[in-house]
Amino acid sequence: MTLPETQTLILEQQGAILHVRLNRPDARNAMSQLMVTELIELFTALAHSETIRGVVLRGEGGNFCSGGDIKDMSNLRLLANQEGSNAAYVAFNRGFGTLINLVNQAPQVVVAVLEGAVLGGGFGLACVSDVALCLDSAKFGLPETGLGVIPAQIAPFVVQRIGLTQARRLALLGNRFGGAEAYRIGLVHELFSSVDALNAAIDEVVGQIRRTAPKASRVTKSILHRVGHVPLDTLLDDVAVQFAEAVSGSEGLEGTMAFVQKRLPTWAE
Amino acid sequence: MTLPETQTLILEQQGAILHVRLNRPDARNAMSQLMVTELIELFTALAHSETIRGVVLRGEGGNFCSGGDIKDMSNLRLLANQEGSNAAYVAFNRGFGTLINLVNQAPQVVVAVLEGAVLGGGFGLACVSDVALCLDSAKFGLPETGLGVIPAQIAPFVVQRIGLTQARRLALLGNRFGGAEAYRIGLVHELFSSVDALNAAIDEVVGQIRRTAPKASRVTKSILHRVGHVPLDTLLDDVAVQFAEAVSGSEGLEGTMAFVQKRLPTWAE
Amino acid sequence: MTLPETQTLILEQQGAILHVRLNRPDARNAMSQLMVTELIELFTALAHSETIRGVVLRGEGGNFCSGGDIKDMSNLRLLANQEGSNAAYVAFNRGFGTLINLVNQAPQVVVAVLEGAVLGGGFGLACVSDVALCLDSAKFGLPETGLGVIPAQIAPFVVQRIGLTQARRLALLGNRFGGAEAYRIGLVHELFSSVDALNAAIDEVVGQIRRTAPKASRVTKSILHRVGHVPLDTLLDDVAVQFAEAVSGSEGLEGTMAFVQKRLPTWAE
Repeated sequence: MTLPETQTLILEQQGAILHVRLNRPDARNAMSQLMVTELIELFTALAHSETIRGVVLRGEGGNFCSGGDIKDMSNLRLLANQEGSNAAYVAFNRGFGTLINLVNQAPQVVVAVLEGAVLGGGFGLACVSDVALCLDSAKFGLPETGLGVIPAQIAPFVVQRIGLTQARRLALLGNRFGGAEAYRIGLVHELFSSVDALNAAIDEVVGQIRRTAPKASRVTKSILHRVGHVPLDTLLDDVAVQFAEAVSGSEGLEGTMAFVQKRLPTWAE
Repeated sequence: MTLPETQTLILEQQGAILHVRLNRPDARNAMSQLMVTELIELFTALAHSETIRGVVLRGEGGNFCSGGDIKDMSNLRLLANQEGSNAAYVAFNRGFGTLINLVNQAPQVVVAVLEGAVLGGGFGLACVSDVALCLDSAKFGLPETGLGVIPAQIAPFVVQRIGLTQARRLALLGNRFGGAEAYRIGLVHELFSSVDALNAAIDEVVGQIRRTAPKASRVTKSILHRVGHVPLDTLLDDVAVQFAEAVSGSEGLEGTMAFVQKRLPTWAE
Repeated sequence: MTLPETQTLILEQQGAILHVRLNRPDARNAMSQLMVTELIELFTALAHSETIRGVVLRGEGGNFCSGGDIKDMSNLRLLANQEGSNAAYVAFNRGFGTLINLVNQAPQVVVAVLEGAVLGGGFGLACVSDVALCLDSAKFGLPETGLGVIPAQIAPFVVQRIGLTQARRLALLGNRFGGAEAYRIGLVHELFSSVDALNAAIDEVVGQIRRTAPKASRVTKSILHRVGHVPLDTLLDDVAVQFAEAVSGSEGLEGTMAFVQKRLPTWAE
């Protein structure tokens, strides 16, 4: 895949794995409009990539992402006043939902590395990762209602991530909480007490991604996203056909052969 | 808001917060028909109140609520026999579902304070709180199937609260369990080992409610309740408009200004 | 109920409880096509049984179930080659979904006893139990994508069991994990460090099943399965009628009487 040129992101491809770093460390990686645009462009390209099988999403400088950018809000306010319309706000906010949804549906295994601030929009982004690795000193929160606004595009993904029961408290109280609580409520999958341990876990997860068959992984992720959205019988009928295709296809043949021969399959090399 | 006169409830308003105490301590606050009627009346009024922003729901005398009232059942049996019909049972049971749903959808932040018995209908009521604060000595359970009846109006809200996996075991075995297990399975949000700590937590939560913008809080809660019930794209479109309204409205202006000026917003005073 | 004759299952009825043991210990109870067929036959019969109120599902020889049988796959491959079609794979795979769904919807309380290997299809079966008792040394995992295939019929039930957040990681990484993690993520309900403690827990759960009213238990389980699949108001209306039938029926009368007389109800004897 040809990587897009980006100002707010550092992109580094290592074989089948793309490392993406949000790169506005002075603003604790607050998501400017440019960053949202660049992420949308990147994940739109990734939606069609079969060479990239995993994406590691991390913030530069010890913070994941502190949410929306205050300066953008001032600009939008100016624009809204000039236009005499809320249209600029609506488009800005909706664009962020488009981004979260793209990341959620990405055919790759998306790994979020959560350190420092994981707030607002950063919280939303963390909610659509397949694997969330977290430093216990990370700080999570949905501060919107304390600022007079709402976690609009974020709320649906928070509910999908941790359920209504936890989401309603966090969204309505706006309380900050740390990595241990994020782990306890199932927002993140693994918890670490040092950056070294966190880095070792990234390597471990990347190794696991390499050992799974590329097409089987993509198909599996697409199935998971259909659960609850189509009738169960329809889904079971469809996936039986997909199973037959997988087992009789090249990955199924190679996987079985490698298992019998007690060797790594070709895709894992 | 003009508070209704009540026999089974103690109501006390402190600014934007309404404290509600179930007041049948001798019956461990079992929900009589009168109590259900009074709670429905109260939450119907609260559905239209903008002055009340938080509701703290607690039981008088160290128990939250021990479920339905046995005496009511005897009266209903008499009535059913007289009428030669189950209609009285149906209406009684359905009314309780109406109540739980009203509390669930209340525009206020609903805080449940869980001590002592949290059984049957009391369990159901706990399941629709936005914030559930729990004493570790509290006793939870769904005793219905052991008594030859079913957790009819309660079951849907238990599944919504803790998911089918935990709900099926609790509803089918009818086992009692304590606060620590309620916390572990995500039924309650915070766990305390003393009434003093519990009381301090109520104050803390009330303070958090006061710091969030009134309209933003109501809108956020209504969004959370729509997740999974409308198509995602529709929801994201709608909430983008709501975001624009919030950010350009008086709360959004005041919230941004207070943030920049490093002061509390007016609604928090 | 007349128990079917089975080669791959050991069936033992103790009053209202049926003990089912998967009996291919040399293959760590891998599910052969014959085992799937026999389980389907058994649970089809159980769907109509009112005498059996609980089913305890366990593997012979210290493993629950290690998933599909490799030998079956070779046979299917031969058949597919002969037929020049994937139809045999599709039918085989879909049949497993039929089985899981039958177990999920069984009117009995289904208890899974999880020891040793709980992999692939065995994982799927564990996901539809009402009560999952687990030894901490048990090994869980979804190894499919590492073998070039997909957890097709299993994935929907994994998502229903533990939610998308945990399911996406386990299905995409294929990582193995133990009983403590299964307990932490809510896949199992109770965790034990010895077989003795596990056996004692089975007795305890069986005792709890006996103490709940047979019909009330069946009706309650059917209600739980409807949550989220029908509009809430419809469900609340329907269950109010079911409540009235239960409370005015023989179980409701006996349950109330036993409660007042401080004795066990007849169904618990």
